[in-house]
Amino acid sequence: MHRVMFFVIGYCLLSVAMVPTAAQTGSVEARLRSLEDKEQIAQLLIDYGRHLDSRDLAAYASLFATDGEWVGGFGTVKGRSEIKAFMEKSLGTGPNRGNSYHIMSNFAITVKGDTGTAWSRWTFVTPGERGATIAQAGRYDDTFVRENGVWKFKKRVASNDTAPPGK
Amino acid sequence: MHRVMFFVIGYCLLSVAMVPTAAQTGSVEARLRSLEDKEQIAQLLIDYGRHLDSRDLAAYASLFATDGEWVGGFGTVKGRSEIKAFMEKSLGTGPNRGNSYHIMSNFAITVKGDTGTAWSRWTFVTPGERGATIAQAGRYDDTFVRENGVWKFKKRVASNDTAPPGK
Amino acid sequence: MHRVMFFVIGYCLLSVAMVPTAAQTGSVEARLRSLEDKEQIAQLLIDYGRHLDSRDLAAYASLFATDGEWVGGFGTVKGRSEIKAFMEKSLGTGPNRGNSYHIMSNFAITVKGDTGTAWSRWTFVTPGERGATIAQAGRYDDTFVRENGVWKFKKRVASNDTAPPGK
Repeated sequence: MHRVMFFVIGYCLLSVAMVPTAAQTGSVEARLRSLEDKEQIAQLLIDYGRHLDSRDLAAYASLFATDGEWVGGFGTVKGRSEIKAFMEKSLGTGPNRGNSYHIMSNFAITVKGDTGTAWSRWTFVTPGERGATIAQAGRYDDTFVRENGVWKFKKRVASNDTAPPGK
Repeated sequence: MHRVMFFVIGYCLLSVAMVPTAAQTGSVEARLRSLEDKEQIAQLLIDYGRHLDSRDLAAYASLFATDGEWVGGFGTVKGRSEIKAFMEKSLGTGPNRGNSYHIMSNFAITVKGDTGTAWSRWTFVTPGERGATIAQAGRYDDTFVRENGVWKFKKRVASNDTAPPGK
Repeated sequence: MHRVMFFVIGYCLLSVAMVPTAAQTGSVEARLRSLEDKEQIAQLLIDYGRHLDSRDLAAYASLFATDGEWVGGFGTVKGRSEIKAFMEKSLGTGPNRGNSYHIMSNFAITVKGDTGTAWSRWTFVTPGERGATIAQAGRYDDTFVRENGVWKFKKRVASNDTAPPGK
């Protein structure tokens, strides 16, 4: 029985011996969590454009935290239902007939515990009679919060590098 | 010897104690696999554009499952060799002289076991005498299958948000 | 005491039993490291454009290895301070008044130990009076090296698919 036990303990030691290597820049759990957090926040950045472009403004507003805030060319608005109403007013409640869309790119995401920040680029494309043109472009500066286990926009600031809408 | 054993067992317990935390949203294995699957599928989406734009249509066709299907502006085609022949007919077998290319963006990937789905955007750019223009743009709706351990397109539906080719 | 010990050993065995599954395509450590390496290199590709577009040429040059090299439409240059001086000469030392920017996309990254390679696309956008246009576009072929634990450009070759600047 002792031989078996030593064998078992040998395996345990092997397992333990791997921990310091795995923990080279943090525990396996912390490293996995960091990768998952960035993946989930990247998905949030993509869902923002997807729901906006498909005019699913209920799904769009749900990407914000309870007290989430949006700041951009249309103005400033805070709170999920307020954001939804604000975008309905700015974009209308009908479908996106022109098939305009956002290319989301250049994500620079940082995470610390249950908060995070991101910088990214948006390129707003509008199809025309022949091909498509870039109608607007700019940057996003975001802060995030993990609310009930899900990453949400705490504040999104959309800056324009081209003339804002209506100008 | 008992002191050593308790020491060893103490380490084992420490290791065991970390498992529940690590398994907060699944086992380490499941979480790693999920991240890897998404990374591999994202690479598949990128390789699609890369091989298409470089006119490596053999490599392009190899990205599809054995019974993989392509649906888009050129028509519908099923099977690897059929897809290769179809694209050779649609695009020609010569080099991509115009250096046209696809910007692949906004990947929304979901995985369940050995199957997966994705939604993404494509922006087709054609260089001209001065700079480049967006000649076409649209979306991809994909289903994937893990075939012999490698993710492949089961079905790719390419939708156009601009006029399709030849219209 | 023996009951407790068997209980403990049982847990250890359980933990050990999970290792072969986890190691399906390498150890947990190797798999985590692979995902982290690709994530860090993707960030390097994004930081390149971010620092270049914001004209933070000191931060830009710091992304290269000590003997890092840049090859592109402006010419060829090697060494961090040389790269900084070269870009200052090519782009000027003032702010980026036109708000031009790079869309970085289609990252294909491979890593082997402390070296890596990548292929990716760049689309250079210049805002105008109405919307924005693609002024240039091309590809990057990169080699990387992990220097003091941080991924750096060993060599970046920027190819143009449109006419290079000044042509």
